[in-house]
Amino acid sequence: MPYFDAASSAPLHPVAREALMASLEEGWADPARLYREGRRARMLLDAAREAAAEAVGCRPDELVFTPSGTQAVHAGISGALAARRRVGRRLVLSAVEHSSVLHSAEVHEAAGGTLATVPVDRTGRASSTGFAEALAADTALACLQSANHEVGTEQPVEEVARMCREAGVPLLVDAAQSLAWGPVAGDWSLLAGSAHKWGGPAGVGLLAVRKGTRFSPQGPRDERESGRSSGFENIPAVLAAVAALRAVRATAAQEAVRLHGLVERIRTRVPELVPDVEVVGDPLRRLPHLVTFSCLYVDGETLLHELDRAGFSVSSGSSCTSSTLTPSHVLKAMGVLSEGNVRVSLPMGTAEADVDRFLEVLATAVRTVREKLGAPRTERPAPSPAVGRVVDALGKRCPLPVIELAKVMAKVPVGGTVTVLADDEAARLDIPAWCTMRGQEFVGERAAERGAAYVVRRRV
Amino acid sequence: MPYFDAASSAPLHPVAREALMASLEEGWADPARLYREGRRARMLLDAAREAAAEAVGCRPDELVFTPSGTQAVHAGISGALAARRRVGRRLVLSAVEHSSVLHSAEVHEAAGGTLATVPVDRTGRASSTGFAEALAADTALACLQSANHEVGTEQPVEEVARMCREAGVPLLVDAAQSLAWGPVAGDWSLLAGSAHKWGGPAGVGLLAVRKGTRFSPQGPRDERESGRSSGFENIPAVLAAVAALRAVRATAAQEAVRLHGLVERIRTRVPELVPDVEVVGDPLRRLPHLVTFSCLYVDGETLLHELDRAGFSVSSGSSCTSSTLTPSHVLKAMGVLSEGNVRVSLPMGTAEADVDRFLEVLATAVRTVREKLGAPRTERPAPSPAVGRVVDALGKRCPLPVIELAKVMAKVPVGGTVTVLADDEAARLDIPAWCTMRGQEFVGERAAERGAAYVVRRRV
Repeated sequence: MPYFDAASSAPLHPVAREALMASLEEGWADPARLYREGRRARMLLDAAREAAAEAVGCRPDELVFTPSGTQAVHAGISGALAARRRVGRRLVLSAVEHSSVLHSAEVHEAAGGTLATVPVDRTGRASSTGFAEALAADTALACLQSANHEVGTEQPVEEVARMCREAGVPLLVDAAQSLAWGPVAGDWSLLAGSAHKWGGPAGVGLLAVRKGTRFSPQGPRDERESGRSSGFENIPAVLAAVAALRAVRATAAQEAVRLHGLVERIRTRVPELVPDVEVVGDPLRRLPHLVTFSCLYVDGETLLHELDRAGFSVSSGSSCTSSTLTPSHVLKAMGVLSEGNVRVSLPMGTAEADVDRFLEVLATAVRTVREKLGAPRTERPAPSPAVGRVVDALGKRCPLPVIELAKVMAKVPVGGTVTVLADDEAARLDIPAWCTMRGQEFVGERAAERGAAYVVRRRV
Repeated sequence: MPYFDAASSAPLHPVAREALMASLEEGWADPARLYREGRRARMLLDAAREAAAEAVGCRPDELVFTPSGTQAVHAGISGALAARRRVGRRLVLSAVEHSSVLHSAEVHEAAGGTLATVPVDRTGRASSTGFAEALAADTALACLQSANHEVGTEQPVEEVARMCREAGVPLLVDAAQSLAWGPVAGDWSLLAGSAHKWGGPAGVGLLAVRKGTRFSPQGPRDERESGRSSGFENIPAVLAAVAALRAVRATAAQEAVRLHGLVERIRTRVPELVPDVEVVGDPLRRLPHLVTFSCLYVDGETLLHELDRAGFSVSSGSSCTSSTLTPSHVLKAMGVLSEGNVRVSLPMGTAEADVDRFLEVLATAVRTVREKLGAPRTERPAPSPAVGRVVDALGKRCPLPVIELAKVMAKVPVGGTVTVLADDEAARLDIPAWCTMRGQEFVGERAAERGAAYVVRRRV
């Protein structure tokens, strides 16, 4: 039963399991205590910090452990912003950051701070020019992920870090998705990571704050972890996390090449096997193990269920698979199709045969879902003479509005228009994306009594 | 090598270890995901929540898991205060709360809120009349621990909860020290707990917010745990924590009687074996496994080292054992001696023979430390005619100022005074306490050029 969602959470590495077992006997005491159990716990924690710092590329006294990657990001952003409050209250971040960064930004904005969001191109790569322009004098902090968690695109961290240094602005790098593969190059100021993404246990994140970076921890003070992370230290989990990081790093270079090849196979074969699919993300500057594509006329939730029934666990950024019923902000910022979205992220050690079987299963699953939904055939039928058609897709959820549009479009002569009434948020993204994929013209959107009206002109 | 510091952190319960091992295979995936690994993780988390809620005495949908007890307290206090901001900004708390509560209170005060601290008596028990008086109309929240973490005294939670209900004020109970022994009785509104105190792993706390309690989570939002605790759920640790809680509860009633007896033995024997010792805390309304006493003319750090060398791990609230070099705020609020302070907290299953050996070892250890420090003999020598003596203890750390005082006091006639000049913070607490223990009169304290001058009159 292949699990292809390593980017959500990687299965526990066997080395982490062993380290956890061993340290449960040794590392449970309070490292602040003077007696032997406390001193032993302190020694183990110090050793773990040293090993983690080496893997991250910083000094041990620059690194603290947090209860999660999310809390590392929250603590890093709030501490850096507070320390530079006198400089200004502008927070610069890319449009495709992880939700933990975006939610920190929301809090900052609610407290009177300002945000500058740097756009990304169609591959999901943040514009370094955009960063350069956004680094105004009142900028307190900039945030850029090392690589995107949904589409795998690597970000220009080194370049942006250099610009930030020149501008005197600290850069926080959310390295959650890339730490397994290596340290983050460049002269960043703060860095956050999450152990369960690299095969460590849940309950461990890390935050590095390089010397010379002003930092003022927020929230109730706590003496533990240099005052940067509150609560009793989870030493057995920390030891397991660090053991896993060292273990995955030992094989990372070799495994990166292998998984890069398997992902390349998926990137090539999916469009051959499945009609009307858009593979997104940068094809070259990307994480080795992650690929995302969207399938026209498919709803993500049903596709995920079909794949799950066939034994494959994958993730999706489609609106129907999120609790808010809005599509992934990453796909939205990239301006790519979000319906029928599938993210495949291969855990280290994934067998080649499983990838091949996935490709077979995928083609069948997409066909099944399209048939269930009554999606149009990919062969284009002859146009009918009707013009100025209106499609009422109000109350219909992704991917139904696009399916309705495609069906009617086939009956409209070249030059004719179709107006789609829809109140599903995904339509705003997916109708223009469908037009691009099909070579049709997206005329525009206007407000309607309910939802919006999207006008499309037939070009081919 | 007996470990007598369960109140800091209890060794991992064997059942917790087993549950952790088992669930590492099952519970590592993201419980928000739709595929089988995610659904299984969700089921495990739901089951753990149900079992935890039963043990706490609340509904499952009232309880969330946090990364630590500290964070449960921080989140509980900030969420309750924010939700009642319109009612007022007064926070009422006892003087002997855990530092996690006090640090939350500091943040509240720094943000413009007000604090009302309810005093405790000499046993460390908070005055319920004091709470009644403090519950003014603008009170947003009251906090009272179930039992004190340093001296074991149980607090009048049921009575205070009733008063709070009548006043329409929510009561948050920090139940970290007592949850192993049973649920907290009374109509509290919020409750916090910490798994590593009951034999669960580190990395798990719990926060219960009873229905009808207004609550507004602070900090960056996160969809996990009803928005009340951020970061990826640590399901294996949660399962282990809940398994441990159920296991300790199964034997709690029986074990409470046994440990209560062993602690009673310590309470009785210590003053018989060690001269000049003050056993503190309520002798009856107390945790079954915890006892604290202070030894005159002894410094806590040296005593802890002596006991550690003899194989016993205990804790201390003496100033010399804290990083801030101030004595425990609990002992201070109680007005009892803080020098040579020892807290013994017996883990479940402690052998009777170990307690007996501890008593032997303690007597020797205290004698050794007193000899090293040149403390006065407990036999009272004949008074010399000197009057109005001054003792310069400036720059000397606890317990030296009290030792100097005692030495000189022996040479002063009844009715004569001794003025002690001291700049050690512990002297402020320990000189009056020494007077009470010795039947001498503490005349008062006045500011001096450096530190303070403490005046004592010989009465006996």
